[in-house]
Amino acid sequence: MKKTATSAFRVPPGQKVHLAKWPTLVKPVYDSAEHYQSLLQTHVAKMSRLQSLLYARDREAILLIFQAMDAAGKDGAIKHIMSGINPQGCQVYSFKHPSAQELDHDFLWRTTQALPERGRIGIFNRSYYEEVLIVRVHPEILAAQRLPDERAGQRQAFWDARFTSINDMEQHLHRSGTRVLKFFLHLSKDEQRRRFIDRIDNPAKNWKFSQADVEERRHWDAYMSAYEDCLRHTSTAQAPWYVIPADDKLNARLIISQVIVETLEGLKMRYPETSEQRRAELLAIRDGLEQEGRVSTGGKAPKPSKPSKKAR
Amino acid sequence: MKKTATSAFRVPPGQKVHLAKWPTLVKPVYDSAEHYQSLLQTHVAKMSRLQSLLYARDREAILLIFQAMDAAGKDGAIKHIMSGINPQGCQVYSFKHPSAQELDHDFLWRTTQALPERGRIGIFNRSYYEEVLIVRVHPEILAAQRLPDERAGQRQAFWDARFTSINDMEQHLHRSGTRVLKFFLHLSKDEQRRRFIDRIDNPAKNWKFSQADVEERRHWDAYMSAYEDCLRHTSTAQAPWYVIPADDKLNARLIISQVIVETLEGLKMRYPETSEQRRAELLAIRDGLEQEGRVSTGGKAPKPSKPSKKAR
Repeated sequence: MKKTATSAFRVPPGQKVHLAKWPTLVKPVYDSAEHYQSLLQTHVAKMSRLQSLLYARDREAILLIFQAMDAAGKDGAIKHIMSGINPQGCQVYSFKHPSAQELDHDFLWRTTQALPERGRIGIFNRSYYEEVLIVRVHPEILAAQRLPDERAGQRQAFWDARFTSINDMEQHLHRSGTRVLKFFLHLSKDEQRRRFIDRIDNPAKNWKFSQADVEERRHWDAYMSAYEDCLRHTSTAQAPWYVIPADDKLNARLIISQVIVETLEGLKMRYPETSEQRRAELLAIRDGLEQEGRVSTGGKAPKPSKPSKKAR
Repeated sequence: MKKTATSAFRVPPGQKVHLAKWPTLVKPVYDSAEHYQSLLQTHVAKMSRLQSLLYARDREAILLIFQAMDAAGKDGAIKHIMSGINPQGCQVYSFKHPSAQELDHDFLWRTTQALPERGRIGIFNRSYYEEVLIVRVHPEILAAQRLPDERAGQRQAFWDARFTSINDMEQHLHRSGTRVLKFFLHLSKDEQRRRFIDRIDNPAKNWKFSQADVEERRHWDAYMSAYEDCLRHTSTAQAPWYVIPADDKLNARLIISQVIVETLEGLKMRYPETSEQRRAELLAIRDGLEQEGRVSTGGKAPKPSKPSKKAR
């Protein structure tokens, strides 16, 4: 894979991951609030232009996956990076507790239905990766899936098989034109604590905070182990994981948006070209329309004058 | 219904509609490109703030329906009005030719599944209204629906029954918390002709243009009759139709965004309040987190210093 400004955050395929060695905080790429805003706006403008092209070409799709511990800034990153993109070509799915119907299907079923169509950017706020993260930390969730093997989940081979299912699906998506990018927002436990306190202290943020968030925090180490195994086994050249230092929300957003821009630019897209034959057809239609215009303005009262074009 | 700046564009319930009398061009509300940009940005900023509130409250939903002849500016309106809104709380569905599976269901089935969840803004780019518009203009599409009555569509009573189904569903949505706003982008036939020619002359827009667009144009009068009957029968106090003068795209966007802002403001939403009991629970959690902080900083090496908060 090509070396870029964001390569340092990409997990090399097959590499063992010790999250304690991956930073939750790095030297920021911005030096002031204004600089942050201007960098973000530059990235958003590039994405917006490239997304129009993606939509017009209608060949590739992009799937962005966000995973993280609570309060790591997934929602804020999605909001700040993707506002400014035409919502017609951009879909966000947040996956919560699966329904009874969803539990009656295999673990890739419900998210598969939400995959982005060609020409779109799809965003998964949590994803099928929950199936090797929260499900691994909480065996009772796996039990509710009623798998044939009643001891499912107790052996490493079970999780390896899930990684294989995920990798196979992502390779299939890649072959079908969908580029998959996966972001783990890497937050320190101490920064999560501070953000929880902030959500309690700020009444307008109280609704975002739930008892369950604190309970999950008790399983921090189990989550980190699950993430480490997951990152090691599912970061591939075709569908890489990025470990984004998330203690500084603003810097995280700049790194993530940079990765997206680089990926879109890497597609080297161009607007669909018009064939000679179609061009001839279009010109024939144009003649007909011109003719019609002459007839209609000849026979009828003049139309009201058009508004100025300058602002278009 | 309350009289507002946009009332003039609203179709009064039950009123017979002569589209020739509804303007396709009005005196613009902006006087320069800069003025347009600043007005649009003001509307978008208001919508963005109100949409965050809608999402946090999680009680109401908004459904925006866009219908129009080709090249009237639906896509551009959606792009320019809704970019800037958090895509996590905003979903756009474009309905194209129904699939064989969809044709095997009643005419409200496929769009019903795409209705916005509570707390979201849903946008239908075309909608179930196609069922009383294109389907009315092209009887062969109705035949493919294999309705029990083989002469379906030949009597006014058939279309009245479809209007009843639509009105009943929209009333149900209103009772369930979804506010439905419907926009007909009213374009003159002559302006459509100019825009088609522009799409042919501009190579980057060729992909947007299809032979079918010109063929539909031949049915202009039949479409206008279908729209008139539809607007008359389905504009209600709870789910009004707006006839937006669309010959000036920029002005159309300003009127539409103004209607959306007025509707959201009319909901008089506030952030969810925290009950006394929940407040007490939160404070207990806060104590636990504070305690934890004292233990962790006491026992371990000091954490790296936090990045500056000023830009947050």
